[in-house]
Amino acid sequence: MSDIASIPVDGPASAGLAAELAQEAGALSGLSTPALVVDGATLEANIRRMAGFGADAGVSLRPHAKTHKCAQIARRQLAAGAVGIATATVAEAEALAAEGIGDLLVTTPFMGTAVFARAVALARRGVRLSLTVDHGGQLEALTGALSPSDPVIDVLVDCDVGQRRTGVTSVGAAVGLARTIAAERRLSFAGLQGFAGQAQHLADPDERSAEATDAGRILKAISDALAGEGLAPGVITGSGTGTFAQDAAGPYSELQVGSYVFMDADYAQIVDTTGAPPPFAPSLFVLSTVVSVNRPGEVTIDAGTKSLAFNGPPPSVIVGVPAGSAYRFAGDEHGILNVPDGAPPPELGARVLVGATHCDPTVNLFSQLHVLSESGLEAWPVLARH
Amino acid sequence: MSDIASIPVDGPASAGLAAELAQEAGALSGLSTPALVVDGATLEANIRRMAGFGADAGVSLRPHAKTHKCAQIARRQLAAGAVGIATATVAEAEALAAEGIGDLLVTTPFMGTAVFARAVALARRGVRLSLTVDHGGQLEALTGALSPSDPVIDVLVDCDVGQRRTGVTSVGAAVGLARTIAAERRLSFAGLQGFAGQAQHLADPDERSAEATDAGRILKAISDALAGEGLAPGVITGSGTGTFAQDAAGPYSELQVGSYVFMDADYAQIVDTTGAPPPFAPSLFVLSTVVSVNRPGEVTIDAGTKSLAFNGPPPSVIVGVPAGSAYRFAGDEHGILNVPDGAPPPELGARVLVGATHCDPTVNLFSQLHVLSESGLEAWPVLARH
Repeated sequence: MSDIASIPVDGPASAGLAAELAQEAGALSGLSTPALVVDGATLEANIRRMAGFGADAGVSLRPHAKTHKCAQIARRQLAAGAVGIATATVAEAEALAAEGIGDLLVTTPFMGTAVFARAVALARRGVRLSLTVDHGGQLEALTGALSPSDPVIDVLVDCDVGQRRTGVTSVGAAVGLARTIAAERRLSFAGLQGFAGQAQHLADPDERSAEATDAGRILKAISDALAGEGLAPGVITGSGTGTFAQDAAGPYSELQVGSYVFMDADYAQIVDTTGAPPPFAPSLFVLSTVVSVNRPGEVTIDAGTKSLAFNGPPPSVIVGVPAGSAYRFAGDEHGILNVPDGAPPPELGARVLVGATHCDPTVNLFSQLHVLSESGLEAWPVLARH
Repeated sequence: MSDIASIPVDGPASAGLAAELAQEAGALSGLSTPALVVDGATLEANIRRMAGFGADAGVSLRPHAKTHKCAQIARRQLAAGAVGIATATVAEAEALAAEGIGDLLVTTPFMGTAVFARAVALARRGVRLSLTVDHGGQLEALTGALSPSDPVIDVLVDCDVGQRRTGVTSVGAAVGLARTIAAERRLSFAGLQGFAGQAQHLADPDERSAEATDAGRILKAISDALAGEGLAPGVITGSGTGTFAQDAAGPYSELQVGSYVFMDADYAQIVDTTGAPPPFAPSLFVLSTVVSVNRPGEVTIDAGTKSLAFNGPPPSVIVGVPAGSAYRFAGDEHGILNVPDGAPPPELGARVLVGATHCDPTVNLFSQLHVLSESGLEAWPVLARH
């Protein structure tokens, strides 16, 4: 395993944002609130750091775009050495393909005549497309969508490695599907996928490691059985920000890390056996305005459950308020900031940055990421929201 | 109070949708999943029923567009007799104004030079715009955005009636703000707003009634004080789907009901003192596809937390599955349907409709409402998502 702890962490998270926020005529002052703001330097550092880890560990990265839904970030991940991009849906793949991303894996099995036709249309346009299946019915739908002149589609077998959500549930089923794929000349059996979602967020490092070990063992058993059939998987893809350091040791050849770019608070709380959190810093914030100041000790801001996903820990990193201030949700469009006793609350109209704690669904609430870096403020579209 | 229970409820909710879902070549089969689907007949019945209640009770309706963010629904509410539309944000008001909605109240106080400029721009374009304020700082920002030739803007004083989110917290503060508004020739003091958010979802009818009574008493006291100053409020606006029947008796002249159009499951569970739920039926569903069927007794569908808001009860109305099936969330893009022992689970590729339980944030996850009615399937845009 690469010694990721030896790669230096760039300065304190959000220092650049805090400085910008303090300037009344700064770049952030021109944004309507609520707005999704990314600390560009921290984003770049997170991307660089994970890329360095993958290179040192000799494992490929296929970063998951479900986190960011953003072509500009996907391009930076590819430029840093990623072999391709993972997407959760065909719609995400379509949106990224339209932005020129050329190697895409859809990580969830899907079903339906129309959606397979859309996937095949991407391959016809020259995208190197990989799909995942966990049932023969999906292969029938896929081959039904292909015409003789279509390019060969790479297909992976999705394996249930303990999450109990999608995937084949036995070695025999995996081998059977792989054989079916290999026997179809318009398809290529590309390998295995297994996502141990049940392991990623476990706080206890030993429990997390044990779950990841079990998941890897399932994939290894399926891989060995396939090798015995002359169908050794070319790729074994999976993993996430919670278990990537362990998973790099095998059996994975490709890591689908996603959250590390923004670093969910929940992931920042999980530590390894040495007590160290993952070496990434939070980069995603919601810019908000203080809109009501009539109650002692607290103010109301214009960021609520339509701006901040609430299936994570409560937001705790808040820039622009006295230390010790706490955020709580107060409806779709509002949150309340409690200020510690004696500290001056922010004034009416003041702006604060609330750190997102569950980044994937927070990004999904906005049409744009406003990325602040040395080159200024850029708006990057969020693609393929439902 | 009008006897709303005497208005007949239209047929069983979602019968039309269920029939449509059963047809393989039906209108719903052409939709990519997940998709937001509205039972048009139930939507119309809900709108008609609330309009009838308002007319009988002699109270105006100003339905809240934060629920639907949809011009087509706002127009139907206006056609049924509503005096105008309420919005949560200036962005919602801008989007509805662009669709020709001419009388708009922004129900949350806001702050900032740019956002007041945007509000004033709406008034300049001929919208009859009403704003709410709870602080003199907002009035300064508003008058700062007005030029001498601008139309007069209606301003209401937002009163904290127990929710502790926005609003003035004393009679004196309300009177002071009303005086300031009335003294400014480019503004018109239009009345009071108070939203008893803390009452709306209380399951116990007596507790809910007591909270609503307390909220009404606060507004009445402020109104009386203003009348004593020669500033009797022209409008007292507030309320919601949880307390509208009681609030119609006063002091409100205008009800900002929103959720009744789709009827959140949570609201369907609150009953009045006779044990009757509010007389509206669920009309909002997420169409989803079965994408994985490898585990006994359960299947995975492609609707998760990026399709269904989860800050309500778990979805319980599910069309297209055996009776007694239960949904649970399984990540951003997936849910799992448990089927009762012995019942046949839906097949791979089958489609199911999952009833949304918290409608406002569910609508906010989609760019379109697909409305199925006798005239066919129509796509209505969801406006002003962040």
